[in-house]
Amino acid sequence: MTSLEKHNRMANAIRFLSMDAVQKANSGHPGLPMGAADVATVLFTKFMTFDPKNPSWPNRDRFVLSAGHGSMLQYSLLYLLGYEDMTLEDLKQFRQLGSKTAGHPEYGHASGIETTTGPLGQGIANAVGMAIAERKLADEFGEELMDHYTYALCGDGCLMEGISQEAIALAGHLKLNKLILMWDNNSITIDGAVSLADSTDQHARFRACNWHTIDIDGHNPEEIEAALKEAQKSDKPTMIACKTTIGYGAPTKAGTNKAHGSPLGDEEIAETRKALGWEYGPFEIPEDVLDAWRVAGLRSTKTRVEWEERLNGSSAKAEFTRRFAGDLPGGFATAMNDYKKKLAAEQPKLASRKSSQETLEVINGVVPETFGGSADLTGSNNTNTSQTAGITPDDFSGRYMHWGVREHAMAAAMNGIALHGGLIPYSGGFLIFSDYCRTSVRLAALMGIRVIHVWTHDSIGVGEDGPTHEPVEQMASLRAIPNLQMFRPADAMETAECWQLALESKDRPSGLALTRQGLPPLRTEYTEKNLCATGAYDLIPADSADVTIFASGSEVSVAVDAQKALTAKGITTRVVSVPCMELFFEQPEAYRKAIIGNSPIKVGVEAAVRMGWDEFIGSDGIFIGMSGFGASGKGPDLFKHFGITAEAVVEAVEAKRG
Amino acid sequence: MTSLEKHNRMANAIRFLSMDAVQKANSGHPGLPMGAADVATVLFTKFMTFDPKNPSWPNRDRFVLSAGHGSMLQYSLLYLLGYEDMTLEDLKQFRQLGSKTAGHPEYGHASGIETTTGPLGQGIANAVGMAIAERKLADEFGEELMDHYTYALCGDGCLMEGISQEAIALAGHLKLNKLILMWDNNSITIDGAVSLADSTDQHARFRACNWHTIDIDGHNPEEIEAALKEAQKSDKPTMIACKTTIGYGAPTKAGTNKAHGSPLGDEEIAETRKALGWEYGPFEIPEDVLDAWRVAGLRSTKTRVEWEERLNGSSAKAEFTRRFAGDLPGGFATAMNDYKKKLAAEQPKLASRKSSQETLEVINGVVPETFGGSADLTGSNNTNTSQTAGITPDDFSGRYMHWGVREHAMAAAMNGIALHGGLIPYSGGFLIFSDYCRTSVRLAALMGIRVIHVWTHDSIGVGEDGPTHEPVEQMASLRAIPNLQMFRPADAMETAECWQLALESKDRPSGLALTRQGLPPLRTEYTEKNLCATGAYDLIPADSADVTIFASGSEVSVAVDAQKALTAKGITTRVVSVPCMELFFEQPEAYRKAIIGNSPIKVGVEAAVRMGWDEFIGSDGIFIGMSGFGASGKGPDLFKHFGITAEAVVEAVEAKRG
Repeated sequence: MTSLEKHNRMANAIRFLSMDAVQKANSGHPGLPMGAADVATVLFTKFMTFDPKNPSWPNRDRFVLSAGHGSMLQYSLLYLLGYEDMTLEDLKQFRQLGSKTAGHPEYGHASGIETTTGPLGQGIANAVGMAIAERKLADEFGEELMDHYTYALCGDGCLMEGISQEAIALAGHLKLNKLILMWDNNSITIDGAVSLADSTDQHARFRACNWHTIDIDGHNPEEIEAALKEAQKSDKPTMIACKTTIGYGAPTKAGTNKAHGSPLGDEEIAETRKALGWEYGPFEIPEDVLDAWRVAGLRSTKTRVEWEERLNGSSAKAEFTRRFAGDLPGGFATAMNDYKKKLAAEQPKLASRKSSQETLEVINGVVPETFGGSADLTGSNNTNTSQTAGITPDDFSGRYMHWGVREHAMAAAMNGIALHGGLIPYSGGFLIFSDYCRTSVRLAALMGIRVIHVWTHDSIGVGEDGPTHEPVEQMASLRAIPNLQMFRPADAMETAECWQLALESKDRPSGLALTRQGLPPLRTEYTEKNLCATGAYDLIPADSADVTIFASGSEVSVAVDAQKALTAKGITTRVVSVPCMELFFEQPEAYRKAIIGNSPIKVGVEAAVRMGWDEFIGSDGIFIGMSGFGASGKGPDLFKHFGITAEAVVEAVEAKRG
Repeated sequence: MTSLEKHNRMANAIRFLSMDAVQKANSGHPGLPMGAADVATVLFTKFMTFDPKNPSWPNRDRFVLSAGHGSMLQYSLLYLLGYEDMTLEDLKQFRQLGSKTAGHPEYGHASGIETTTGPLGQGIANAVGMAIAERKLADEFGEELMDHYTYALCGDGCLMEGISQEAIALAGHLKLNKLILMWDNNSITIDGAVSLADSTDQHARFRACNWHTIDIDGHNPEEIEAALKEAQKSDKPTMIACKTTIGYGAPTKAGTNKAHGSPLGDEEIAETRKALGWEYGPFEIPEDVLDAWRVAGLRSTKTRVEWEERLNGSSAKAEFTRRFAGDLPGGFATAMNDYKKKLAAEQPKLASRKSSQETLEVINGVVPETFGGSADLTGSNNTNTSQTAGITPDDFSGRYMHWGVREHAMAAAMNGIALHGGLIPYSGGFLIFSDYCRTSVRLAALMGIRVIHVWTHDSIGVGEDGPTHEPVEQMASLRAIPNLQMFRPADAMETAECWQLALESKDRPSGLALTRQGLPPLRTEYTEKNLCATGAYDLIPADSADVTIFASGSEVSVAVDAQKALTAKGITTRVVSVPCMELFFEQPEAYRKAIIGNSPIKVGVEAAVRMGWDEFIGSDGIFIGMSGFGASGKGPDLFKHFGITAEAVVEAVEAKRG
């Protein structure tokens, strides 16, 4: 058998596993796996360094299937390469409830799936993040411990999504030369030919962004191999345009959108078997082919063993291992408690964005794996500290990324950094612009990874910039995302506690909503216990309170002022601070009931829409907040104008009492 | 005075109005207006066609300040050019509560502001939409009535945002040669030099997307004029890179990020006066300069009058006028009623995405201004009808846009189309991908414009594609946006009614959340009254009901099945269909109270998170829905798995009754 024949048989194994699994599920996308099978075969059998027996080996090459609808390509590869938790049976369960082989690759479902993809373009930016992490860790731990490539496979749709441009421009700027993007250039999208909607010269576009580009026949294994070799040597990130035929091998559907997202049908599949000379039944892989794949799967074992030896001989072993385990350093808790004592002593009046910076100064001093940044709002987000020198294209010794005005790629690349391991990324942005990166934030929540978003300018407190920059519905809409912890601390102490909770949450993302404007200290006594950990707690307790006021962030001080005024009027009033609704809803029922309490009048105060607050105040509770968009004006004027003041709380309570 | 001296004095008027207004407000962005003053002066005094006395003249050139933080540039221009509703007093009130001169340009605050900008990149895509509308209407009404340019001014940040790529690629593909984008190429962003975060060759990038590009000194009026002339003649959209100095004229801050977003300070302003030879006080414009601007402001009057004459002589006058007034054609209501009668007679069982298509078939037959499209999901969204031939780069006679995999630019361009007037745009996309275009959807709501988003695949009913494609929190997060009408119809009849409401809402955007899976008919009798208009209504009334079930969309049939089962058990049960929460909350209190009712047990059913439903069921109500992400599996399996069934409703009710 010639090497070409061998290659073709190996690639056809992917094709038939994919089309047969899609057919069995009667659902899925055969076109990409069939079209990209040659590219994937060369990549995984000759270039990718990994070990199916040690799938989380930190120095493995990373592979991201940005075109996640082609998931059967990835599942086929994992099975063929010998990943033990991907069996033929799993492939037969493609797209069935409870199977590992979900419609799109789901991180955590099986080894070797480096990220969850499906929403197009995300994977490119994830890969950029992984390549950033690799380069940063190589700088820190040396190439003996960190030296791998990151590969991504994308489709036309990925390249049309705006996030791709943000990611591509950033990668080119940073000269991420170990990032290699393979574009499955099949000229077909769901609606038909790409030319229906796009005329972009992708090579010119990538070159304009400082990439190296190569153009090949994506069905010619020699060209694929030569291109990958060339890419590995480039001093820039490389895009390899692989001209392929979607649904390659299917006699009537190949090259058309009919091969994209539907089963080919029994007849077409039978004809494809004939056309490609594949004499085996569904899910039947001949021994020679499976052997060849399994041998390829094990070819990096030696490389991995040698790496383990280097790690074992390294003075950095303990630190490297801790970092990849995701454990925080021993000094962290102590440093945070010391800082909280200092806050209790000094009682600073600070904007929470500033409190966040002071907290970060402590964190970055003891947690070397934090990796900061901002989408061009550093001076506003206060995400930089004395430890955070900037990353530059030629020097990755810093710990801070100037992401540019690219919220979406920032969030998606942070997902890639967290998935890579060894670093804890945190961002900087305006809360309003969480809208720009919502898909990536959701994917972090779905995957359960530790990324931390610092979102400042969290309400009409923004002031003069006006309604385009004033979050109103963002708290509700972010709280609606399952598994995302949204913190809105009320003062410097709560800010420290919320930061601590975010860092200690290994398997979920967090957002911190922080003020532009100054906040008085409310938590003035040191407690070792992190009071924010329950999500909501008695800030000002009162037995048999007539009124309970629930509030978050900057409005907790409004609640405290209202409490004083009401108390002065003989109305017993309690104040509950609600820094994190998600954590509160996860508390035992008894705690939740106790916090909600039995006051005849319940008030919620947040400079945002009411949605979500009824769980505290009931649908008949008083809500002091926003019911529409903000306005441009001085911050204090806006709070008065929209009636979010202690006086408004008192008035509403008195009106209700009659 | 030489023409250059005259130009400089006119441009300096912009500079000083801007820096003085920012200083007076002690807030704002002087850098862009000072840097772009020369470009704007040439554009508005020699190229832009408009009439300050008739600011909404349909055939005016459009100008979009995509870099919205430079709002004082626009306000200065409006004042100088003689727009009557922009006075010196308004400029002095810059950024004060209640003023027209908000921090960022707000559509509707003053004439001449064509769109609300601020979130970067949006304006470029708005302008693309306006240019699409111009070309489409020129095709329909002829160049006698529609023949204008669309200009946009953007900054470096706009070009970094991913939405810019989507918009640029689309505009180049469509050969929108009357679109001219001026890039204020000042090499500065908030964090510092653009080179901190970007190395893109923008000329090469635009050319890769089929644009013409020109490079000029943005302070040289002759070069600006020559470039604009060249751009007007191009057969492609043109990007003019205007090399400028941010904060031009400020002795120590020009060319740095210190000029970007803060007042310059009294001292620097005094020095700028000296440097630019400006002898006038704050807000003082010498007569010769104001005269020159006012003359320029009136130079297109004749052009407008001639256009009015052509309109008056045109057989299309009535239709053209109706279209720009935003009124629906006379036959619309009748056609919808006829269609509803047909539905009542035929009682089809259809997925609501399919019902939507059948409704659109009726709408597109009688409403010629609808302009459809899809982000590459036409066959899934069912947004095409027999009337919707596709737009191609060389033929705009169609009514359907293949937007490509570009949800964000689609939504923002639709905003531009709606703002332009003459067309009613509707989109097609998956509900999950509303996350990709959320900023643009929000801006439509803030501006109060009629764009309609068709969002299909609206729950775990999506099935096998899995959690990346299954909306869970999207209904809540979209309902949280003020002024956005989110419809989730329960059957074919409700789909027709919701479409009618969306079209009849001249001054707000709508979203339709539609199923992938089939839905039984529930509204089987014809009513002339649009029952969905109140947002929630008694679908199955019952006096003194023990249980009231509130549900939307596909879960209304779950509620109806549960109602039958409960009734059979002797438990009186009422069903309220909730197609649109926003409309319901706008009803008079008496109606709302009657609909909420007094049942001891209230149940909400929606295959989504609970957030928002407490206003119907109270915080102690039963909610049958999702509490986390979905999964990959057959749709019916998922509904069972997640317990969103009639049986689950019955069980929960019985458990609560004890």
